[in-house]
Amino acid sequence: MDNKHSDTAGTALAMHRKWNGKIETVAKSKVNSREDLAIAYTPGVAEPCRAIAADREAAYAYTIKASTIAVVSDGSAVLGLGNIGPLAAMPVMEGKCVLFKEFGGVNAIPLCLDTQDTEEIISVVKNIAPAFGGINLEDISAPRCFEIEERLQEILDIPVFHDDQHGTAIVVLAGIINALKVTGKKKEDCRVVVNGAGSAGIAITKLLLTYGFVHVTMCDRAGIIGKDYPGLNWMQQKMTELTNIENAHGTLADALKGADIFVGVSAPDIVTPEMVASMNRDSILFAMANPVPEIMPDVAKAAGARIIGTGRSDFPNQINNVVAFPGIFKGALEGRAERITEKMKLAAAEAIAGLVPDDQLCDECIMPEAFDPRVADAVSRAVKAYIGR
Amino acid sequence: MDNKHSDTAGTALAMHRKWNGKIETVAKSKVNSREDLAIAYTPGVAEPCRAIAADREAAYAYTIKASTIAVVSDGSAVLGLGNIGPLAAMPVMEGKCVLFKEFGGVNAIPLCLDTQDTEEIISVVKNIAPAFGGINLEDISAPRCFEIEERLQEILDIPVFHDDQHGTAIVVLAGIINALKVTGKKKEDCRVVVNGAGSAGIAITKLLLTYGFVHVTMCDRAGIIGKDYPGLNWMQQKMTELTNIENAHGTLADALKGADIFVGVSAPDIVTPEMVASMNRDSILFAMANPVPEIMPDVAKAAGARIIGTGRSDFPNQINNVVAFPGIFKGALEGRAERITEKMKLAAAEAIAGLVPDDQLCDECIMPEAFDPRVADAVSRAVKAYIGR
Repeated sequence: MDNKHSDTAGTALAMHRKWNGKIETVAKSKVNSREDLAIAYTPGVAEPCRAIAADREAAYAYTIKASTIAVVSDGSAVLGLGNIGPLAAMPVMEGKCVLFKEFGGVNAIPLCLDTQDTEEIISVVKNIAPAFGGINLEDISAPRCFEIEERLQEILDIPVFHDDQHGTAIVVLAGIINALKVTGKKKEDCRVVVNGAGSAGIAITKLLLTYGFVHVTMCDRAGIIGKDYPGLNWMQQKMTELTNIENAHGTLADALKGADIFVGVSAPDIVTPEMVASMNRDSILFAMANPVPEIMPDVAKAAGARIIGTGRSDFPNQINNVVAFPGIFKGALEGRAERITEKMKLAAAEAIAGLVPDDQLCDECIMPEAFDPRVADAVSRAVKAYIGR
Repeated sequence: MDNKHSDTAGTALAMHRKWNGKIETVAKSKVNSREDLAIAYTPGVAEPCRAIAADREAAYAYTIKASTIAVVSDGSAVLGLGNIGPLAAMPVMEGKCVLFKEFGGVNAIPLCLDTQDTEEIISVVKNIAPAFGGINLEDISAPRCFEIEERLQEILDIPVFHDDQHGTAIVVLAGIINALKVTGKKKEDCRVVVNGAGSAGIAITKLLLTYGFVHVTMCDRAGIIGKDYPGLNWMQQKMTELTNIENAHGTLADALKGADIFVGVSAPDIVTPEMVASMNRDSILFAMANPVPEIMPDVAKAAGARIIGTGRSDFPNQINNVVAFPGIFKGALEGRAERITEKMKLAAAEAIAGLVPDDQLCDECIMPEAFDPRVADAVSRAVKAYIGR
């Protein structure tokens, strides 16, 4: 692993230097003659300008708005790197833009903001919105990310989607839907433990509840989160009204006793074989800490877990939100959605899960391949089917 | 003309609908396999992030910053269309981005801002700056454009360039340099009248003074601008300290008596044959109102003008800033300029002028062709030669 890691690191640096920026802009309207110039620029360009001035909707016919989103970050919570700031976050945002284009055909522009002030971020995004058909928020730390997303979605008539929250939640739900099929468990009866109460953990919990799970318990470093847990932010506080309905106290180990599903968006190696052994039979573990999961799959398996997913491509059941976000925005743009609703998120999760036919489901094959070319279209269709519903 | 105009208008609408956005983003890093994904995105992408976090300069090696600018407008002064707002301004900004790429190889992103408040515009541009190697301000009305540009350039360490001002000024100066060669006039002795005291007129006047012209008079709708002209904005007021050194009063017709050079960035048909006839011999007229110039070239010629330029491609001597801005930013990016200085602007004008060899200069051939492939490189080299000087 160490050699492989340093190989990847060295190659990544060399390739990034070679690319010198992972995206470029390309003109769809060539200007090889005075006539071309008169159509794409002055004087011809005045015509679509006038049309849009008369009817805002015309922007979707005549400009990039119909096919282009902004990928916006303040660099405050980048991958496992933390608060590295906007400039250092650029390679990640460019990478995200590459994935939007390559997987979903969506044009995406990386914007890394030189502010981490909630009001300023809202003001900037609101003010750059006219050019774009959607806003993908990325790697913005909790709890600011919740307020930024909510308030922007109130102001804007284009989708605002914080992928760290909802992309992750959708793909986790997709995996769980298939894991339930494989194990025969029923969502109403399952006890779920979500470990990690940041943006991803909270969004996962919300979407699981929306889907129909009843018993969800969130944990954080100090254990089970309840109404009297100290130091909760406003969103975590709100979650205590929806989770841990028995008002349990205790550690993560306590929470896992008799649990059916563990979802970890937390830290390496914090789940022990003993904890897994204490779970209900046919237990499902999504150990998504990166690059080192909460428990290694072979260890979890040996301790009695049945289905294990991680964030890694070198283990089975990779839980990777690249199967969600390109299709989400592809569908939202094509259908001119004004927001990504809960119903769309559920439909996207079902669509992802549905790409693995029932007769091909198994303990180690609950997720479609990230490179399965059907994924973005399936997600896109699912999203579009719920526009306006 | 009417038929031709409506043809262009119809074609422009149809083509804009077909393009559905004149630019797109293209991935330079393809992701066709898990290995590709591990290099362009996680986990490999963490390496360039770390490198930039350790040294901001590394952003120029590893991200789009080295090759990408933002084209920023608030839609307040778009072409001849006026204050049509940010959404309707998009086709123009996309067109500008096309020209940056096609003529200068510069990646450019159109950002149309949903605010016309000076402080908000400054805040937005400052906050989106990390992703970009330069900011091209476009179609922002005077006098806000002056403050916005000045203050942004103070804050940012990348070039901030308002093309309506400086691009126009550079290309006008280029034309005048060659017109002086053709006519044998000396800049120190020339009397220049600039008609129109908006962003372009003011920038042209400033650059002519920097170049060495001494006698420059600005006019506006009510005639010659002097210290006691009513209703001047702060920048126009400032210009009265540099222009009209004899403190003349009167109309545009009065100003033109005995003048050598007329530069119009004003309105159609406001210069009469009588005014031209009253000018000094070998007079030079740049009548750049679009699409109908201040005086038609044939009329001006018949009235005694020697050299006539317009903004139009269907007359000789087109004064078109597409010969300036792509090369300006190409050079600024390649040379990592932190600002576009007066020396760079003068050098760019000289470079544009120099593309027409002395033995090919004539009354109707003072400007290089917009499509001359040497233009952007020549301007770029000129700009780079003055970085840090």
